Amino acid sequence: MDRTQKTEIVNMCMVCRGDQVLVLDKVHKEWGGYTFPGGHVEREEAFADAVIREVYEETGLTISAPMLCGVKDWVNEDGSRYLVLLYKAHRFSGELTASREGEVFWMPLEELLSDEEHISLDMKDLIKVFTRDDLSEFFYYQEEKQWKYQLK
Amino acid sequence: MDRTQKTEIVNMCMVCRGDQVLVLDKVHKEWGGYTFPGGHVEREEAFADAVIREVYEETGLTISAPMLCGVKDWVNEDGSRYLVLLYKAHRFSGELTASREGEVFWMPLEELLSDEEHISLDMKDLIKVFTRDDLSEFFYYQEEKQWKYQLK
Repeated sequence: MDRTQKTEIVNMCMVCRGDQVLVLDKVHKEWGGYTFPGGHVEREEAFADAVIREVYEETGLTISAPMLCGVKDWVNEDGSRYLVLLYKAHRFSGELTASREGEVFWMPLEELLSDEEHISLDMKDLIKVFTRDDLSEFFYYQEEKQWKYQLK
Repeated sequence: MDRTQKTEIVNMCMVCRGDQVLVLDKVHKEWGGYTFPGGHVEREEAFADAVIREVYEETGLTISAPMLCGVKDWVNEDGSRYLVLLYKAHRFSGELTASREGEVFWMPLEELLSDEEHISLDMKDLIKVFTRDDLSEFFYYQEEKQWKYQLK
């Protein structure tokens, strides 16, 4: 029996320096605003290598020992899955450098959480999955044709 | 551009009680031996729900707040992925009950690690991903037609 399911796999990383986190001010017409760096996993790439590469491409920093701390995911109407692997990193080297994805800068996590004007859609609740030990998933689902989400 | 990749997603959970872990003596001709409970994620199921269901089906225990702590994965020759989501759980309720997957029992983690006779293939190194903060992945890859693995 074929148990595979078409799945698009990406990652997102909260890079931490004391009480600050590394913020990407993403240039995107639907999903713009303050978020964390990350992107697509390549077809033959290990997941840890993918998040290290993406953070480097978008921020200039080379993280080490990324810790997996949760997932954000949903099932599309065609039955395919979308899966975001959520990582935290406390160790890094290099110089902060922006890419065309958007500006990057350090910001106290508390300040990010209260910046309603700039924070990207759903980031405030997503950050709970990064920071709380009792949560491992941000799950989108459809109910009566509306997308909703649950933290699990 | 279609960024999806056919992916088979399963889970495995290290349920902890003090210094003991919940061991499944798996009945399987190739992958038998002492391992942790887990199994396939259903097509529309949230990942946290899947690991709670699988642990219940195989052990009779209902875990809560499973913590994602890593992945085990590889890319098959046909380009599809196999992904095992690794969880830890310290909270549970219910009565220990075996299923046809195999007997289940508590065992000190140290004893499991030193039981070369019964421990399942690759579990000893896999447990490092469950227990070490600086590791998030057990990645199988092929080199000169041989399967090898790296901890990342």
